Amino acid sequence: MKNVALFGAGRIGSIHAANLARLPGIHLKYVSDPMADAAQRLATLHGAQAKADPAAIFQDPGIDAVVIGTPTTTHSDLIRQAAAAGKHIFCEKPVDLSADRAQECAAAVALAGVACMIGFQRRFDPTFSDAKRRLSEGEIGTPEMLVITSRDCAPPPVDYIRSSGGIFRDMLIHDFDIFRWILAGETDEAAWLSATGSSLIDPAIAQAGDIDSAIVSIRTRSGRLCQINASRRAAYGYDQRFEILGSAGLLACDNLRPTAVRQMDAHSVRIDKPEHFFLERYRDAYRLEIEHFFQQLQAGGPFRTTIADGVAAQRLADAAAQSLASGQPVTFD
Amino acid sequence: MKNVALFGAGRIGSIHAANLARLPGIHLKYVSDPMADAAQRLATLHGAQAKADPAAIFQDPGIDAVVIGTPTTTHSDLIRQAAAAGKHIFCEKPVDLSADRAQECAAAVALAGVACMIGFQRRFDPTFSDAKRRLSEGEIGTPEMLVITSRDCAPPPVDYIRSSGGIFRDMLIHDFDIFRWILAGETDEAAWLSATGSSLIDPAIAQAGDIDSAIVSIRTRSGRLCQINASRRAAYGYDQRFEILGSAGLLACDNLRPTAVRQMDAHSVRIDKPEHFFLERYRDAYRLEIEHFFQQLQAGGPFRTTIADGVAAQRLADAAAQSLASGQPVTFD
Amino acid sequence: MKNVALFGAGRIGSIHAANLARLPGIHLKYVSDPMADAAQRLATLHGAQAKADPAAIFQDPGIDAVVIGTPTTTHSDLIRQAAAAGKHIFCEKPVDLSADRAQECAAAVALAGVACMIGFQRRFDPTFSDAKRRLSEGEIGTPEMLVITSRDCAPPPVDYIRSSGGIFRDMLIHDFDIFRWILAGETDEAAWLSATGSSLIDPAIAQAGDIDSAIVSIRTRSGRLCQINASRRAAYGYDQRFEILGSAGLLACDNLRPTAVRQMDAHSVRIDKPEHFFLERYRDAYRLEIEHFFQQLQAGGPFRTTIADGVAAQRLADAAAQSLASGQPVTFD
Amino acid sequence: MKNVALFGAGRIGSIHAANLARLPGIHLKYVSDPMADAAQRLATLHGAQAKADPAAIFQDPGIDAVVIGTPTTTHSDLIRQAAAAGKHIFCEKPVDLSADRAQECAAAVALAGVACMIGFQRRFDPTFSDAKRRLSEGEIGTPEMLVITSRDCAPPPVDYIRSSGGIFRDMLIHDFDIFRWILAGETDEAAWLSATGSSLIDPAIAQAGDIDSAIVSIRTRSGRLCQINASRRAAYGYDQRFEILGSAGLLACDNLRPTAVRQMDAHSVRIDKPEHFFLERYRDAYRLEIEHFFQQLQAGGPFRTTIADGVAAQRLADAAAQSLASGQPVTFD
Repeated sequence: MKNVALFGAGRIGSIHAANLARLPGIHLKYVSDPMADAAQRLATLHGAQAKADPAAIFQDPGIDAVVIGTPTTTHSDLIRQAAAAGKHIFCEKPVDLSADRAQECAAAVALAGVACMIGFQRRFDPTFSDAKRRLSEGEIGTPEMLVITSRDCAPPPVDYIRSSGGIFRDMLIHDFDIFRWILAGETDEAAWLSATGSSLIDPAIAQAGDIDSAIVSIRTRSGRLCQINASRRAAYGYDQRFEILGSAGLLACDNLRPTAVRQMDAHSVRIDKPEHFFLERYRDAYRLEIEHFFQQLQAGGPFRTTIADGVAAQRLADAAAQSLASGQPVTFD
Repeated sequence: MKNVALFGAGRIGSIHAANLARLPGIHLKYVSDPMADAAQRLATLHGAQAKADPAAIFQDPGIDAVVIGTPTTTHSDLIRQAAAAGKHIFCEKPVDLSADRAQECAAAVALAGVACMIGFQRRFDPTFSDAKRRLSEGEIGTPEMLVITSRDCAPPPVDYIRSSGGIFRDMLIHDFDIFRWILAGETDEAAWLSATGSSLIDPAIAQAGDIDSAIVSIRTRSGRLCQINASRRAAYGYDQRFEILGSAGLLACDNLRPTAVRQMDAHSVRIDKPEHFFLERYRDAYRLEIEHFFQQLQAGGPFRTTIADGVAAQRLADAAAQSLASGQPVTFD
Repeated sequence: MKNVALFGAGRIGSIHAANLARLPGIHLKYVSDPMADAAQRLATLHGAQAKADPAAIFQDPGIDAVVIGTPTTTHSDLIRQAAAAGKHIFCEKPVDLSADRAQECAAAVALAGVACMIGFQRRFDPTFSDAKRRLSEGEIGTPEMLVITSRDCAPPPVDYIRSSGGIFRDMLIHDFDIFRWILAGETDEAAWLSATGSSLIDPAIAQAGDIDSAIVSIRTRSGRLCQINASRRAAYGYDQRFEILGSAGLLACDNLRPTAVRQMDAHSVRIDKPEHFFLERYRDAYRLEIEHFFQQLQAGGPFRTTIADGVAAQRLADAAAQSLASGQPVTFD
Repeated sequence: MKNVALFGAGRIGSIHAANLARLPGIHLKYVSDPMADAAQRLATLHGAQAKADPAAIFQDPGIDAVVIGTPTTTHSDLIRQAAAAGKHIFCEKPVDLSADRAQECAAAVALAGVACMIGFQRRFDPTFSDAKRRLSEGEIGTPEMLVITSRDCAPPPVDYIRSSGGIFRDMLIHDFDIFRWILAGETDEAAWLSATGSSLIDPAIAQAGDIDSAIVSIRTRSGRLCQINASRRAAYGYDQRFEILGSAGLLACDNLRPTAVRQMDAHSVRIDKPEHFFLERYRDAYRLEIEHFFQQLQAGGPFRTTIADGVAAQRLADAAAQSLASGQPVTFD
C-alpha cells in the first residue's frame, strides 16, 4: 500500500483524486489546497484528510509519493520540497515557465534520487499511443512529416492568459512534447524552428501580451518536418489530431466523439462534434498516466514522460516565443 | 447506504461487482455463486463476503437489494425468492425461457411490492439512448421503419447453445426489446411477425437444434415495420447497429471502435474494427443501468426496463421460434 | 459503325442518348417518342432524326440495334417487334409487368436469335460491381446474408403508381435483381419469400392500391438469407446500400455524396447527404451499361443482365406481391 | 461556333481535347505538338487537324481561342504570340517560371485586349468550390487559418524535376493559389512567409538541386495564418485536402475515393484509398474549367483564375524558394 498526498483540489486535482481512489494498493491520505473548502470537499469525497500546510505533509514519513496539480507557478517549489523530503513525484506540466528553473528542478530531483514523472497525459491517450505503437512497428515505414492540429474549444479567462507564460508555454507545450515523442525521439531533436501567430479572437488577449492563433514549423537534424497549428478557439469542440506521413503510408489520429449517432435529414448527414474539452477528451489518458506512474514506481522502470521531457518541451516553447517576437527562426546546436 | 447481494460471480457478475463498488452509497455485502472459488475471489476484490447459501442472504434483514447475474435457468427462482423476502431486484435478461413463467414472476413481484428491473443494458448505451432522445424530440419526424443488425463476434460453445433457449430467446431477445423501445412503445405493439433462419456457420449448432443466422420481420398494429438480421458470427467484431427511418430523416447508431486511428497505405484506408464483444461494447451501458437502478430505487421512480418489458420481449422471441418452426407468420391480437 | 434507334425521349431516354453520343463507333440515327416535340428536341441535340413511327424504324435495314426507354407497358411489344425485325435490343427494366408475358418475350428473342440486354443498371455501378468483384475473389469468405436498403427520395405521382405494377414490380425489381446477382446466382435461387408492408407516407398511395413501405425476407435453397427494406421516401436523399455478411467478413456499399466537404460547427459535424436520386446516383452506371451492351455485341459475349434475369426478378416481384396480399410466405420449387 | 487550337498533345492536352469535344458550340480545329505522331493521334480521335507550325495556326483568322497545354518553358512565348494574333488564351499553370516574365506576359495580354485564363483547375473542383461557396456565405464565420495538405502519389522523373523550377514553383504553385483564393483574396495578401524542407525520399532529387518535402507558413497583412505541407510521395494515393478554421466553425475538404465500398474483416475496416493522381482527382475540375473559359468568353465576364493570379502565385513560390535557400522568412510590402 502506497500513501499519497495530492496538491491541488481544482479541476485537474479532482480528476487525479478520482483516479487515485480507483487504484488498488493506493491510499489517498492528504489533499492540500490553499482553498480550504475545496480541499475539504475533495478529501471527504475520497476518504482522505484535508491538510493546508505542505510542510506537514512532507514531514509525514508515511507519505510515499505526491501528485502535484496546483497552478504552474508553484510546481518547481513543490517538486524541490518533495525531492528534498524523499517523496516520489508526479507533477502536471509544465515543470516551470522558465526552462532554466525547470532544469534546476531536474537536477534537484536527480540529486535526491526520487522518481519524477511529468503529466504529459497525451502520451497515454489510447488513440495516440496506438498510433505510436504502429509507427514503432514500422506500419508506415520511416516517419517523415508530422502535422499537429491543436485547438481549444474556447479561450481561458484573460487573467489566466496573463500568467500562463503565453500560448507556446501554456498550450503548445503539449504539442512540442508530441513532436518529440512521435517524430524526434532521443536521436533526432529539433534543429530549426520558426513560429508566428496573431491575435484574431479577442483583442483582450493581445492586450495581455499574448496571441491566440499560432503556427509553428520545425525541422529536425535529420531533416524531418513538423507543423503545428493551434488556436485558442474551435467553435466545434476540442480539436486534437495529428497525422504522421511515413515512407510507406500515413497514420492519422482523428478526434473522438461522445456518441456514434448519425442523423440524416433534408439538409445533411450529421455526426457528433468532437469531445468538448480536455477533461472529456483525455479522460482515459488521465487514468492511464496515474496507473503508469504507480506501476513504474513499483517495477522500478522508467517513466514514459520524464522531467527531462518537461525541460526539453519547455526549451521548444521558449524558442517559439523568441521566434514570434523576432520574426526570425531559431536554430539549435 | 444500501446493502446489496450479488448472485453470480462469472463474467457478467464481475462487471456488476466492479460497477457496484464505484457507486457512492452502495455497499456490496455478499457475493454468492455455486463456484465457491469464484465467489471468494470476487468478494475479496471488492471487500465483500462470499456466501454460498442464497437462503441465508434472503434472510439477512440488512440486505436491501439483490443483483442477479446467474445462468438463465435460475433467474425466475431467485426473483421469486427475493420478492418473497422483500428485496428489490435487478436481474439480467431473460426473466425466464418460458414467457408464461416469466409472467408468473412478474405477478409475484407485483404481489410482493418490490421493485424489479430487467437488465436490458442496451437501453442505457449512450449512443442508443441519444438516438432515442433525438427520436422523442422529433428530429426525424414520425418513425416508420427500424432496421436492426445484431451479430456476435463468434458463436458460444454448443453446450451453451443447447440450454440457451435458441437464438431468438438467447440473442434476439435484446433486439426484440430494442424494437419495443424504439418503434413500438406502449401504444403500438407487434401485430405480425415472420422469422426464418439457417445454420450456416457450424453444423453442430444445427445438431443442437438451433440456427445461427436469423432474419425477422415485424409489422406493428399501426403498420410500422421492423427488420432484424442476426448472426452468431461476425469475423470483424461485435456488430450492433440500428437505423430508424422517419418521415423527416434517419437516425443511425453506428458501431463503436477502440481507437480513432486511421492508417493509410498502398492498399487501403483502415480504421479499427468494432469493439470486440458485449463486455467492451456495453461497458458504459452496464455501468449506467446499475446507476439507474439505484437512482430510481432512491427516487421511487419507474425503471426504464421493467419485468413487463422482459415478458413482452420473451413473447416476441417465442413467436419468432414458432414462425421459424412452422414456416408461417405469427399474428398477435 | 453501328446505327442505333432510341425509343423514348423522356428522362431515361435523354440519358441514354447522351451516353450513346459519346460512344465511338456508335451513331444515334433515330429518336422515337409519341411526344413529337420531345423527340425532336433530343434528336436535334445529338444530330439524330426524330421519327414517330416505330414500324419505319424497324423496317430500316441500316439500324443495328434499338435502345428502349419508353413506359413499361410498351416494353414487351417493342421487344417483340425489334426481335422480329432482327434488331439487337437494349431494354430498360422491367421486361413486362407480367412475368408470363416477360417469359414469352424471352422466347421470342431466343427464336429471333437477336441479342437482348435488360437495363438493370445497378450491376454496373462502380461501387456495387467492385463489391461483387471482391466477393468473387473470396475477400469475405462464403456469403451468408445480404441486407439491402432501397429508398427513393420521394414518391412518384400517384398516377404513375397506379400503373406501375406496385412497389415490388416497379421499385424492388432492382433489389430482387441485386439479390440474385450477389447472393443467389445461378446455382442457388430463392426457396422461400415473405413480404409485408404498409402505406405510411401518403394515403393516396393506399387508395391507389399500393403500399409505400415494404420489407421482404428471402431464404435460398442452400439457406442463405436476404432482407430488403424499401421506402418511397427518404427525406435525406436517395438511399441505395447493401451489405454482404460472409464467413470471413463484411462488404458494405455505402451511399455516394456530391462533394467531400465536411462542415463542423457548434452543433455537429456535417457531410453531404447522398446523391439526390437515381439520375445522379447511377450516372456512371448508365454510361457503363450502354458501353457494355455494345462491347458485348461487338465481342459476341454474354450480357451481364439478360432477359432471363429480367424474367427471374419479375417472378420474385410477383411472389412478394402475393405474399403481401395473403399475409403468408411463398415457397418456390 | 468557336474554333479552337490546342497546343500540346500529352497527358494534359488529351484531357483538354476530350473536354473540348464534348462542349456544344466548340470546334477543336487544330492540335499542335512537336511530337507529330501524338498530335496526329489526338487530332484524329476528335476529328481535328494536326498542325506542327504554331505560326500557321496563329495566322488562321478562323481560330478564336487557343488552349495551351505544352511544357512550362513554352508557355510565355505561346501566350505572347497568341495575344499578338488576337486569340483568346487558356493556358495551363504556370505562366512562366520567372515571375517577372510572367508579369510581362500579363502586360502583353492586357495590351492586346485578349482574354486570358490560367488553368488553376483546383478552383473548379466541386468539393473545393463548394467549400469556397460555404465560406462566402458565412457558414463558419470569419476565416482565420488555412491548413493545406498537398502530396503527390509519387515523385516525377528526376529529369523532369531538374527543369521544373523546383517543388515550390512546380507543385506548391497550386497551393499558393488556393491560399490566395480561400484565405487572402484581393484585400489581404501575404505579408510574411517562411519555408523549409528536405530531401527525404530520393537522394537524386537533392542532387538535382531540389527538395521533396516542404512546409510553408504564411501570415497575411491582417494576421490570418496559412500552413502548407507538401510531399512528392504519398504511398496511399494523391492527398489533396484543406481545412479552413473560422470564428464559428471549420470547413474541411476531404479526399475523394474511387468507390464507396467498405470492407470489414478480422483485422480492420477498410475503405478505398484516395484517387490515384491528379488526372483522376481533378477529372471534373478539368471539365469545368474549360466550360467556364468558354462561358465567360461568351458572356464577357471575368475568369475565376486570371493571369494576375498566375503572377501572384509565382511570386509566392519565388519567396518560398528564397526562404528555403536563406533559412530566413521573406516579408512583403
